[in-house]
Amino acid sequence: MYDLLLRHPFMSAEGLAATRDTALIAAMREVELALASEQEALGLLPQGSAEAMARHLGDEVFDSRALADGALKGGNAAIPFVKQAKAALPDELKPCFHWGATSQDILDSALMLLLKPRLARCLTLLERARVAGCVLMRDHRDTPMVGRTLMQQALPITFGAKLAHWLHGLHQAERRLAEVVAQGLYVQFGGAVGVHSGQGEHGLTLMDGLATRLGLNAPLLPWHTDRQPILALSGALDAVAAGAEKIALDVALLCQTEIGELSEPAEAGVGESSSMPHKRNPVGCARIRAAARQIHGQTGLLSHAAAQPLERGLGEWHAEWAPLVDATLLLEGALESLAALLEGLEVHREAMRRNLAITGGAIMAEPAARVLTPALGSDTAKRIAREAAETARHEGSEYAKALLAHGEVAGRIDAETLRAAVQPELYIGSSRAQVERVLKALK
Amino acid sequence: MYDLLLRHPFMSAEGLAATRDTALIAAMREVELALASEQEALGLLPQGSAEAMARHLGDEVFDSRALADGALKGGNAAIPFVKQAKAALPDELKPCFHWGATSQDILDSALMLLLKPRLARCLTLLERARVAGCVLMRDHRDTPMVGRTLMQQALPITFGAKLAHWLHGLHQAERRLAEVVAQGLYVQFGGAVGVHSGQGEHGLTLMDGLATRLGLNAPLLPWHTDRQPILALSGALDAVAAGAEKIALDVALLCQTEIGELSEPAEAGVGESSSMPHKRNPVGCARIRAAARQIHGQTGLLSHAAAQPLERGLGEWHAEWAPLVDATLLLEGALESLAALLEGLEVHREAMRRNLAITGGAIMAEPAARVLTPALGSDTAKRIAREAAETARHEGSEYAKALLAHGEVAGRIDAETLRAAVQPELYIGSSRAQVERVLKALK
Amino acid sequence: MYDLLLRHPFMSAEGLAATRDTALIAAMREVELALASEQEALGLLPQGSAEAMARHLGDEVFDSRALADGALKGGNAAIPFVKQAKAALPDELKPCFHWGATSQDILDSALMLLLKPRLARCLTLLERARVAGCVLMRDHRDTPMVGRTLMQQALPITFGAKLAHWLHGLHQAERRLAEVVAQGLYVQFGGAVGVHSGQGEHGLTLMDGLATRLGLNAPLLPWHTDRQPILALSGALDAVAAGAEKIALDVALLCQTEIGELSEPAEAGVGESSSMPHKRNPVGCARIRAAARQIHGQTGLLSHAAAQPLERGLGEWHAEWAPLVDATLLLEGALESLAALLEGLEVHREAMRRNLAITGGAIMAEPAARVLTPALGSDTAKRIAREAAETARHEGSEYAKALLAHGEVAGRIDAETLRAAVQPELYIGSSRAQVERVLKALK
Amino acid sequence: MYDLLLRHPFMSAEGLAATRDTALIAAMREVELALASEQEALGLLPQGSAEAMARHLGDEVFDSRALADGALKGGNAAIPFVKQAKAALPDELKPCFHWGATSQDILDSALMLLLKPRLARCLTLLERARVAGCVLMRDHRDTPMVGRTLMQQALPITFGAKLAHWLHGLHQAERRLAEVVAQGLYVQFGGAVGVHSGQGEHGLTLMDGLATRLGLNAPLLPWHTDRQPILALSGALDAVAAGAEKIALDVALLCQTEIGELSEPAEAGVGESSSMPHKRNPVGCARIRAAARQIHGQTGLLSHAAAQPLERGLGEWHAEWAPLVDATLLLEGALESLAALLEGLEVHREAMRRNLAITGGAIMAEPAARVLTPALGSDTAKRIAREAAETARHEGSEYAKALLAHGEVAGRIDAETLRAAVQPELYIGSSRAQVERVLKALK
Repeated sequence: MYDLLLRHPFMSAEGLAATRDTALIAAMREVELALASEQEALGLLPQGSAEAMARHLGDEVFDSRALADGALKGGNAAIPFVKQAKAALPDELKPCFHWGATSQDILDSALMLLLKPRLARCLTLLERARVAGCVLMRDHRDTPMVGRTLMQQALPITFGAKLAHWLHGLHQAERRLAEVVAQGLYVQFGGAVGVHSGQGEHGLTLMDGLATRLGLNAPLLPWHTDRQPILALSGALDAVAAGAEKIALDVALLCQTEIGELSEPAEAGVGESSSMPHKRNPVGCARIRAAARQIHGQTGLLSHAAAQPLERGLGEWHAEWAPLVDATLLLEGALESLAALLEGLEVHREAMRRNLAITGGAIMAEPAARVLTPALGSDTAKRIAREAAETARHEGSEYAKALLAHGEVAGRIDAETLRAAVQPELYIGSSRAQVERVLKALK
Repeated sequence: MYDLLLRHPFMSAEGLAATRDTALIAAMREVELALASEQEALGLLPQGSAEAMARHLGDEVFDSRALADGALKGGNAAIPFVKQAKAALPDELKPCFHWGATSQDILDSALMLLLKPRLARCLTLLERARVAGCVLMRDHRDTPMVGRTLMQQALPITFGAKLAHWLHGLHQAERRLAEVVAQGLYVQFGGAVGVHSGQGEHGLTLMDGLATRLGLNAPLLPWHTDRQPILALSGALDAVAAGAEKIALDVALLCQTEIGELSEPAEAGVGESSSMPHKRNPVGCARIRAAARQIHGQTGLLSHAAAQPLERGLGEWHAEWAPLVDATLLLEGALESLAALLEGLEVHREAMRRNLAITGGAIMAEPAARVLTPALGSDTAKRIAREAAETARHEGSEYAKALLAHGEVAGRIDAETLRAAVQPELYIGSSRAQVERVLKALK
Repeated sequence: MYDLLLRHPFMSAEGLAATRDTALIAAMREVELALASEQEALGLLPQGSAEAMARHLGDEVFDSRALADGALKGGNAAIPFVKQAKAALPDELKPCFHWGATSQDILDSALMLLLKPRLARCLTLLERARVAGCVLMRDHRDTPMVGRTLMQQALPITFGAKLAHWLHGLHQAERRLAEVVAQGLYVQFGGAVGVHSGQGEHGLTLMDGLATRLGLNAPLLPWHTDRQPILALSGALDAVAAGAEKIALDVALLCQTEIGELSEPAEAGVGESSSMPHKRNPVGCARIRAAARQIHGQTGLLSHAAAQPLERGLGEWHAEWAPLVDATLLLEGALESLAALLEGLEVHREAMRRNLAITGGAIMAEPAARVLTPALGSDTAKRIAREAAETARHEGSEYAKALLAHGEVAGRIDAETLRAAVQPELYIGSSRAQVERVLKALK
Repeated sequence: MYDLLLRHPFMSAEGLAATRDTALIAAMREVELALASEQEALGLLPQGSAEAMARHLGDEVFDSRALADGALKGGNAAIPFVKQAKAALPDELKPCFHWGATSQDILDSALMLLLKPRLARCLTLLERARVAGCVLMRDHRDTPMVGRTLMQQALPITFGAKLAHWLHGLHQAERRLAEVVAQGLYVQFGGAVGVHSGQGEHGLTLMDGLATRLGLNAPLLPWHTDRQPILALSGALDAVAAGAEKIALDVALLCQTEIGELSEPAEAGVGESSSMPHKRNPVGCARIRAAARQIHGQTGLLSHAAAQPLERGLGEWHAEWAPLVDATLLLEGALESLAALLEGLEVHREAMRRNLAITGGAIMAEPAARVLTPALGSDTAKRIAREAAETARHEGSEYAKALLAHGEVAGRIDAETLRAAVQPELYIGSSRAQVERVLKALK
């Protein structure tokens, strides 16, 4: 398929390797064997059943192509998987296998087994991004740059403060994901109609025990058509994606040739253009943004598919599989790019300084006027602040100088006070305190 | 506008009344006055400033039409609001008003003030739904009905178990919403570029104090372009909507003429058809489903708008307003319908019993075969189970009787054991235990 | 990857086979060689260049794994593809290869080459569905069944009329898709910034000629960041998906055990349950619905990605690739299921008749009252219509009989007129004429 | 409601005025009266019925508040509308009113009546945008500027060519919308279950005649649950929105302080910041982008709602109303902004020239190397091109001069040829021809 060239570039290679069809088959087997073990422990199956099954169900038993064909006909992969497994078992074990289970029990549980290490890796990558971000934040605690609203220069901030906002945003999403990973990756086990038919009083006990064996969380009830666990997971994936996407958007904007305040890490072969040798494309940002957009699309469809009819979906459940795994691997890929981006980000202080000065001093007109007002009145103060900015831009001089040299100002205002008010690196509000807050919170 | 007839029917009337433009204006004023009070308390404004402002800013000061026009030109409603307010203030108060604030501070905070009571009401309605659901769950703990997967009859469950699944699903979403309401409705205050320009060291203190005054949560940092709080809220709204939608879907399916196991509460004028007098349309379900679909759409667009550039969005923020409030009022409307639905739901045990019998006994063929297998072997057992089901359907007799009367069965199987296995009301697995679990968890 | 078991079951196997990575590589080569040929024809390259290139660029030249890795680093697959190709060319041909082209030219054009036969197959499948549907429509022109609104029995229709609605809906979408296939699959060729830099006056001529050589449509201009062609295509895919989804939804509802008016075609191994031998799951419908939901999600994200910055997207373009091909192959898969469904659909006239009678006659109460009104007045007529329906239901008798036997009716109404008004098979309005219209339109 | 301040700023004021609830009520009355007229013409109602009805159904008959309440209870606004109307009619006219119609007939048709003039206005606004764009295109046919890919400077284009791309993109969407307006705004008329129950052979004739009377298109069949017409409309709205959004995105990027190539039209009170007097915010672009994002969300939900069950939706139809009208009014609002934007756009040629020179000449390195290669070999040529760009940037000199002054170049290359190759205004490929093409196509 076209995956290799069109889909995989946005996904994690490590993630892809770990979620092959064979891994899914192995996960389904793991679920079935854990179920048998648990039933054995409860005395529902003869001692040794699970071990005997395991011996008969080597990798060679399962034929992926035939499974794929069976998945099409049966409606899901667990149906042909059970058939292939039973075919390989001796007669006495056949009725013990998949006993009391339904396809969705196996597939949902196997999916959770598959996703769990991927989500754990996402958390590791988030930590890497966080650590790298904190290093940058400390280094640029006092690096002034211009803040921009509606993409227009507005007033100064520090790059440290910007990092604080990025990291705090990402961290909120990280906490959501961590909570889902710790408490919300549930085993599925409910049998044909979600009430453990034929397992009588043992049903819920079995479900709880199965969760423990598989290292998954035990849900209160089976969740065949209660897709809240999927919504919680997809919402967390989407939030992390949005956190990464915000950073990528800002980085891409600050990498623009005319702004040039940041560059993506230089790496051989990365970001070259096929036709323009001078370019260094922010491909890390493009990759993150491409992944995030796809994740938003997948989250949206999962939300539209969450209300599923009666005791089992009629297409809604089936529509979840690929988008859910896709979203996870896309996020893992995006976070690989994000961690690398923050670890190697090139920060051009010089350009930040240059851009702060580009309007002459117009961006400092508001604080200037504020200082001038007591002595000159509000209207005059605003006019002078504007005129001095024009002068500074035309003459390429400093705004403070232009202000102090203005005919109506000279001698009426304390030079130091004025200078302090219009020097961007001093007019950074709570930037420093924000960095402290975030450093403390992220520890 | 067309709202009254095309939009409002799906929204809460109470919610609509509480979120009029005048309420938004009042909320913006509340934010500005609380800010002035806080600045006063910190010694940044003269004593009495806030009170003086309040005296000048009566309702008559604000002209909604002019605000709407100004919102179009300025890009948001806070800009003309500040202008109208300043025009009504004496000169000495003008510079004290909106000091250090930016439009988004006012609008985001005002929106949170507006939404908070609506979300609280959603929680109240969820509680009503929960209580009503628990009553039904207790009443129908032992009411057998058929479980259906892919909309086909499968095996028996109880209506109590179905309710348990509904309520547990809804409750997971309720907890998410409750958490956001308790901890995630943040004040917004960051000034022009999110670093409290000109407020120096007081910025974060002001932000925290403002939150307390307004009864909102204090965020770690301003969140002008960190929209994680919006994602957390919209995700919770969407999850509750999905929980309600699932119930509405099931109810609608069980209300179908041919199934007839449930009816929506009968109320004069509700659900009548304009052309067919015999019909009782499940309009409560339709309303919930229509609202949920719209909420999913809004959630999706909020997720696509979450990554906002630099220090202020360029359309992304603006795109959030109506969808966010719409989603809240739609949810409030849907939950009104849901509470009423569960409080007055008509349950037709007779129809549930009839439908359990409709296939003769085919749905019990699997447990029947399981009981017959030890004595007759698996293949024979399955054949007999199938043949007896055919017989039962043709003769309209009970499945157990047909089985016991089968030539190859008579005398070889314990009648009581067989009867127990194929009586739907006994083959309900963990249904009862599931009800107990959920009753305990929802307490 | 997990594709085989989680994604491919919803896609067309034929489509999957035709869109492997190797096919994409072949398509990229085809585009490059056609470009060289066209440049040769215009005298821009030496005679024989294209043929010489072709000789050097056998399949063995390209290494998919390395391409995948390069796609990640470079941002798209065309970049490493060009590198691998150039490495295989003698020095004199290197500058002739990919001359004047940019990555997006190659990749967009190659994608269109890949999609074109898939879309053609979709049209073929739509024709199969249409033909099969017309056979059913003719067969069931006069098969009465109950029409249902808000899932409640309403008034009679014919199954032919239902088919007419299904097929007309699908056909509207088919025409959209056919138009895109005929006129809207464009070659991409614009060079680095979309203005054929370095190709001077030849640029547009080259673009037009390239289109002809590749059998694609010539656009008015390059469309690197004008994604209207993608929107038109994705909208058409989505519309066809919705047309198929509507049919699948209706079929699934009419397959419900209690309704039983339709069954999916019986095929060994299809639709069996892993735990319940009596079930026949409508897996064709589930497959169609799962595919359609995924397609809606992909369409939504393509619409959000359509506005791309300046001369080349920064993630937006990249986000299009997999969703666009996915949507196509999912649609091809859904249409395979739809064609098979309509070709083998089992129609249970008996059940349709039974369901028409299930309410006694309540669904005919409105026409009954209409006939009675002139003689008895509107209120009395309505009361009698209702009472007779109750009687008919309780006694299991015909509604017409119950009406004629009603004390207030007997002798005052012409029996034949009344009978005609309340016999469902006669009260089918324009059902027949609708079938005629559609048969004529679909010819 | 919060509409005035949070929703309406993005909508057209003219559109809002024309779609008030009273307009919807008037449209419903128009549909009912046209139906009666048509039935009269076919001899199904007594002569004069329609006129008599009209006399009784003045504006005062309808109470919007009560309608809203009834819409909630009944499920849609047509149900209480019919009740209020009948209450105002004399007994003999009551059965003639709404005869053979169902709520959805009235509401869908009324919506089309409401939307038609709004869509016509959208087309007018698109024409205004087109005309203004063509003026700009002619003026800037030869204005060189830098093309940017992945937001990095790439190679020169002309602003005329950029306009050509914008306008051609928009025009493709305009044609889709025009086609829907001309041929796809259908009357709805099918009666209770879509087959004209009780209207016998007259059903389709009535439907066709009703369309003519109302100035709407006649569909082949009623489309109660065939929502292809809605999909075609919403797809066209979305495409136009994307076309406008693309322009707004580019304008916003080119308005950035550091780039400064464009400014939004200056207008008093527009784009001012509440806290920063020096700013001119691109609020027109923000408005367009905010509207477009909301439209994408609505389109997505309409696509998810398109498959509606059996003969009438259960929430799916209801979910369409507000999003459909919202999307239309948002588009009308966005196009007002777009027309104004293009009519008053300020183009800063000076800044375009300055930005072309900002990299020294690095953006022209590729054509430079191409010219140098024959004499110096490919590798040397590339090195020299790069070195000269460095020199030009450091010295602030022209790239051509730096190249010619390079030790290895001097005397070996024809100065004029080299100059021509590296002068951005000459290296604009097909820019001029593209403008010609589009001017011709848009005529």
